[in-house]
Amino acid sequence: MKYGLIGASGKLGKEVINVFADNNHELVFTFDLTGEWFQSEPEVLIDCSLPEAFDEVLSLATKFSSPLVVATTGLKESNFKKLKELSNKICVVQSYNFSLGIQILLQLTKKANELLTDWDVEISETHHRFKKDKPSGTAKMLQEIFKDRNINTSSFRLGNVPGDHSISFAGMGEVIKLEHRALSRRTFAEGILLSAGFALKQEKGFYTFTDVVFNKKTL
Amino acid sequence: MKYGLIGASGKLGKEVINVFADNNHELVFTFDLTGEWFQSEPEVLIDCSLPEAFDEVLSLATKFSSPLVVATTGLKESNFKKLKELSNKICVVQSYNFSLGIQILLQLTKKANELLTDWDVEISETHHRFKKDKPSGTAKMLQEIFKDRNINTSSFRLGNVPGDHSISFAGMGEVIKLEHRALSRRTFAEGILLSAGFALKQEKGFYTFTDVVFNKKTL
Amino acid sequence: MKYGLIGASGKLGKEVINVFADNNHELVFTFDLTGEWFQSEPEVLIDCSLPEAFDEVLSLATKFSSPLVVATTGLKESNFKKLKELSNKICVVQSYNFSLGIQILLQLTKKANELLTDWDVEISETHHRFKKDKPSGTAKMLQEIFKDRNINTSSFRLGNVPGDHSISFAGMGEVIKLEHRALSRRTFAEGILLSAGFALKQEKGFYTFTDVVFNKKTL
Amino acid sequence: MKYGLIGASGKLGKEVINVFADNNHELVFTFDLTGEWFQSEPEVLIDCSLPEAFDEVLSLATKFSSPLVVATTGLKESNFKKLKELSNKICVVQSYNFSLGIQILLQLTKKANELLTDWDVEISETHHRFKKDKPSGTAKMLQEIFKDRNINTSSFRLGNVPGDHSISFAGMGEVIKLEHRALSRRTFAEGILLSAGFALKQEKGFYTFTDVVFNKKTL
Repeated sequence: MKYGLIGASGKLGKEVINVFADNNHELVFTFDLTGEWFQSEPEVLIDCSLPEAFDEVLSLATKFSSPLVVATTGLKESNFKKLKELSNKICVVQSYNFSLGIQILLQLTKKANELLTDWDVEISETHHRFKKDKPSGTAKMLQEIFKDRNINTSSFRLGNVPGDHSISFAGMGEVIKLEHRALSRRTFAEGILLSAGFALKQEKGFYTFTDVVFNKKTL
Repeated sequence: MKYGLIGASGKLGKEVINVFADNNHELVFTFDLTGEWFQSEPEVLIDCSLPEAFDEVLSLATKFSSPLVVATTGLKESNFKKLKELSNKICVVQSYNFSLGIQILLQLTKKANELLTDWDVEISETHHRFKKDKPSGTAKMLQEIFKDRNINTSSFRLGNVPGDHSISFAGMGEVIKLEHRALSRRTFAEGILLSAGFALKQEKGFYTFTDVVFNKKTL
Repeated sequence: MKYGLIGASGKLGKEVINVFADNNHELVFTFDLTGEWFQSEPEVLIDCSLPEAFDEVLSLATKFSSPLVVATTGLKESNFKKLKELSNKICVVQSYNFSLGIQILLQLTKKANELLTDWDVEISETHHRFKKDKPSGTAKMLQEIFKDRNINTSSFRLGNVPGDHSISFAGMGEVIKLEHRALSRRTFAEGILLSAGFALKQEKGFYTFTDVVFNKKTL
Repeated sequence: MKYGLIGASGKLGKEVINVFADNNHELVFTFDLTGEWFQSEPEVLIDCSLPEAFDEVLSLATKFSSPLVVATTGLKESNFKKLKELSNKICVVQSYNFSLGIQILLQLTKKANELLTDWDVEISETHHRFKKDKPSGTAKMLQEIFKDRNINTSSFRLGNVPGDHSISFAGMGEVIKLEHRALSRRTFAEGILLSAGFALKQEKGFYTFTDVVFNKKTL
């Protein structure tokens, strides 16, 4: 596929370039702080930038009228509203975490929450020192599972850790812990590639990476 | 309830005595290496002994014709055969681990195994230095989930650790780990109490702690 | 030894009673929310209460003129000032954590900090849901090692966990984690017994559990 | 520097090429299963191959008479004997693990072992499924610290994990765990670069990565 990339010079952007190149996809457009580079119109647009660039992302997706995969974290409620409006015209896939393992973790956490309703719960996440938002977007997805309960989330920023998440459940005599550890950012780029392929095959609509993995529509 | 206890002087036996006393149940019979103590006939018989005492356990259960809860680990295939024969006459509840959390861990592990069929899997267990069997009975229950695959189990024997179990799943870019940690042996004694209450209400039959927790028959 | 106990009805107080009884020491005085019980004058006074009872602790130690072992956490700067004044007259042993393993952890953390001056550091502690102060007294002892750096501490409150502490160090390519896990409160009671024995042999002075373990004076 | 690389096409070999290129060092010789490539004589020779290639490594180092950095794991006693003979003529740096963090872990483990002589100890290591030797070379370095004791080592092979090592110490009431986690193979390549720079400045002699880090001679 011919793809465009917003936030091409960031850490995740670079991994996307590597993984897409390894799979023989052609980069035809980039946009980042250093400016814009255009070779031809992209079939799909990937956003790995920052919330500050959100308006630019919207206007580029509208201009190219191409499916949009949004991997930026730290979006606001108002950003989501606009993404959903946009999804009336084009296909939008948005997720705070594009790893398959995180999708599994979310499912296991939901299951554990159903079975352990009266146990204490705490969430923990660890990322590299360069991560700007706190807690991570993935931690927010986990918090969503426990929205009816008052639970605590701790964030660690350490060296170059790609991304760890854990959920601890504790009763009076035992503790259960579910952990996910990303070994490299390549994992996320592979999920983005999967999502780009999915987006190309869909009509307009708003999808999450859960839909990509389990192949059903959310909204 | 009036209960009898085989292996009353062992670590788990002592916890059973504490937990049953806290719940106002009356100890009326004990049997261990130091001999037999009889006050009155037990309504339910608890076995926290060693496989070496298995024949004695069978004959006591037959003599009292009371429901039997078996918490001994390291049983052989031949022991199980005899337990199932006995269950044609009385109610038998047998498990290698009487913690609620382990039941949840087993369910989550089954779910993860369904979703992550091509990931590597390894099991790990850690117990106090006094534990004689290796791997633990709980590790064997976990191995059973992966019986169609060739997986490795590691056993650690450290100080006075009550019992940790973990299952690691790994793909090429990420790792998921499910962990259970018992905080004290009291957890197991509480599960045994739950099982004794369950056994008193059942007809003859062979049950596991999964049946006690999820309230359905296995065999 | 004949010992007195302030906070006798708390979780730690009860463990102290067990451990001291197992070692044939005689409880002769207690003080807690339910009132005072006096049999004879104690040779050493143990404080396992709350900061709210601090003034009472001081006046009892002065009244009996006996060595004092302070295991209460969450003390203020002003409390420490008064303890040090008191130590001009009697022997005071104070620590936020009476486990031998924590003393080792503190030493290893100091060593790691000397060798890894430019790595990121984060502290984590997990305790039972009943723990009132946050972060734990032990976490404060760990923070003290990094007082020249700006580091983050996360606190988890989960079920009945006796007490976990960890320190993570991370460079750009690797992570080192030092962890301590208390298996039961009995560990702390054993350290308090060690300290009471130490206090009986000392002249007046202010000591910590580090002094008890490594046998040298701090102040 | 102009360097030669044996095992250039392996996972570690590729990282070495990246890290050395990033630091403007010139690759002038390679040797691997696909054959030999020669541009000019190397100032230093790096070995990231397998024990099977050991004789070839020796004869190349002798031929070029250049310092040799050996990063191959799984060497035999007889291999070490020959390396030490070679070190009478040229500088040899050998280690089973070229990460700075592992050097720190070894120091902390030695310290803990001195302080916790009567606690139980177990070693655990986890690596990617492609790792051939078991236990890892680093685990062997850890075992060496406990050579007077009978301790257990467990090995896990999971997905693409770059390399985790941990040492657990346990008394009857507490557990201390020291953990190291490599985030990527780049860490090792950076340690090899450090060693190559060290080797260029030394006379003949046998050195380990500990010598490189702490700058003193072993033999």
